[in-house]
Amino acid sequence: MNYIVYKNENALYYECGYSCDNAIFLKVGKDSFFITDGRYEIDAKANIKNSKIVITNSLVLELAKILKKSRVKKIIIDPLEWNLFSFNLLKDNTPTKFKQVDSFSHKKRVIKDDNEIKLLKKAVKLGRDAFKSVAKEITVGKSEKELNFLAETILRDYGERDLSFEPILAIDENASKPHALPTDKILNKDSLLLFDAGVKYKRYCSDRTRTSFFDGETLRFNYKQKYKNKTIQKAYDTVLKAHDKAIKKARSGMKASQIDKIARDVIQKAGFGKYFVHSTGHGVGLDIHEMPYISSKSETIIEDGMVFTIEPGIYIEGEFGIRIEDMVYMKNSKAEVL
Amino acid sequence: MNYIVYKNENALYYECGYSCDNAIFLKVGKDSFFITDGRYEIDAKANIKNSKIVITNSLVLELAKILKKSRVKKIIIDPLEWNLFSFNLLKDNTPTKFKQVDSFSHKKRVIKDDNEIKLLKKAVKLGRDAFKSVAKEITVGKSEKELNFLAETILRDYGERDLSFEPILAIDENASKPHALPTDKILNKDSLLLFDAGVKYKRYCSDRTRTSFFDGETLRFNYKQKYKNKTIQKAYDTVLKAHDKAIKKARSGMKASQIDKIARDVIQKAGFGKYFVHSTGHGVGLDIHEMPYISSKSETIIEDGMVFTIEPGIYIEGEFGIRIEDMVYMKNSKAEVL
Repeated sequence: MNYIVYKNENALYYECGYSCDNAIFLKVGKDSFFITDGRYEIDAKANIKNSKIVITNSLVLELAKILKKSRVKKIIIDPLEWNLFSFNLLKDNTPTKFKQVDSFSHKKRVIKDDNEIKLLKKAVKLGRDAFKSVAKEITVGKSEKELNFLAETILRDYGERDLSFEPILAIDENASKPHALPTDKILNKDSLLLFDAGVKYKRYCSDRTRTSFFDGETLRFNYKQKYKNKTIQKAYDTVLKAHDKAIKKARSGMKASQIDKIARDVIQKAGFGKYFVHSTGHGVGLDIHEMPYISSKSETIIEDGMVFTIEPGIYIEGEFGIRIEDMVYMKNSKAEVL
Repeated sequence: MNYIVYKNENALYYECGYSCDNAIFLKVGKDSFFITDGRYEIDAKANIKNSKIVITNSLVLELAKILKKSRVKKIIIDPLEWNLFSFNLLKDNTPTKFKQVDSFSHKKRVIKDDNEIKLLKKAVKLGRDAFKSVAKEITVGKSEKELNFLAETILRDYGERDLSFEPILAIDENASKPHALPTDKILNKDSLLLFDAGVKYKRYCSDRTRTSFFDGETLRFNYKQKYKNKTIQKAYDTVLKAHDKAIKKARSGMKASQIDKIARDVIQKAGFGKYFVHSTGHGVGLDIHEMPYISSKSETIIEDGMVFTIEPGIYIEGEFGIRIEDMVYMKNSKAEVL
């Protein structure tokens, strides 16, 4: 299989164990090439064993040259990786034809091997430990912005500096926005706190969400939570039930949409259907969002070795938001929490 | 002028004062549209005054619809913003023709107005203050990784969380790699320390580099540095001279390449020419790298209101690296340090 990876750091890393922000990887027959510029020469040579390193000021023109020389007739590219400008340049400088396969690297990476599972487990463990450390630092009177800064500092300490994404830490009605930015809102006694965060370990991501009740003294990111407000408690119990059932009933051989349906049905039956505004989950690996997507429309067949989140939620605008998220992997046909 | 901004956060922000990671901005005649998905509806409506907010699950198809309805015949797009996949989808769903103008938003943004200069000045001030705080925390025995973590934590505190880029903090020969990743190398007495970092203020970036000699007691990120090694001292004095001369001699009306030449000539005359492996500077604004590029090939005519870095350097592989960088803006035909 002949293919090109274009300036996609995690896809580059997957191919050759190294990446930088300006490189192209090319596989033609038995040969592979890592094309980059002079800034990365030293590091590329030190880290890449399986490819020829090519240093140039013009990555795309160099790629065109190699393609011409190799006489390859057709090669796979990912149209999501290429910008129109660079693709025009490549197309105009080589006779090679292109087969456009979107998400090509994600498709290659959807089944994780044992070593990847090990790294993901470690990332999840670090993430879990970081949640515990963050919980200890949470006190009455801190604003979302302060809590966010605090959380980010702690997470970076666990995750060897790199986070899977900017953490989300939202109080009460701010948790109703699935992608809330931190505000000056203060954490009080009896507040609800939603915390969604992940760290990286050797570039593999973790992802976790907990929604907690803060009694003014101690906050715990446990599954068991007791809210004073009855509607919130009902919503919380419903989300937890949807989360647990989806994990328990997921099987290899199912369509991803069937797993989404298991969680969605629980929430619908409890009367919160229209407040579950996103899909049940997404794959996680080198990228925080990758295949498989656990959505109502996904025809992907779930297989052993896939890793994804289960993260149902209920969001009532201006009132509250609840989400509980764990990462699972498929093993012996069943979903195991990482 | 009719144009489209496609999923480019700073370009979106420049058009309407708000951005998110999944949006398209469209200007047709007197109308403008901000097309995004449901996750950003609340925030977009709260923050955008000058555009119609359109919520959809399929941004590109919605854009195609609006284009068809507006009967616009030709519209500017930036081929650097569009991936091939989305462009194929757009092209196949609208009769509109596209005029490809690369770096369209950067071209619009190259002259900064008074308010932008104010924000940039403030960002530079925060960055400068952060350098002072970092200097105070530097002690013998810390590793590059530790120093980096420390620097990042301090910078985030000054910069309202957001940094212009991951800071670079490199010791001795590691400073010879222009884009060094932090290692376990330890800071000792008599070490050279290169520190390149910037913070953001209201999304505008700062960028600054200092290279310092560490006497084991106090580190200062001043221009004046005294190295024990004579070659290093000569290289340092040369870089500083190139930096000072380029700032002093820069004029509106010059080609950017002329400014590059002023710095490069100083370094060449001192015999270090081949060790100055990058251009003299780059524009800074909402993006950390934007126009004008101060390179040997740039035909850009420098004008009042432009903001860019002057950052000559000398890098001798395996031995040491030196760079001194400041941001300047053009005012009354001359370069003023921000």
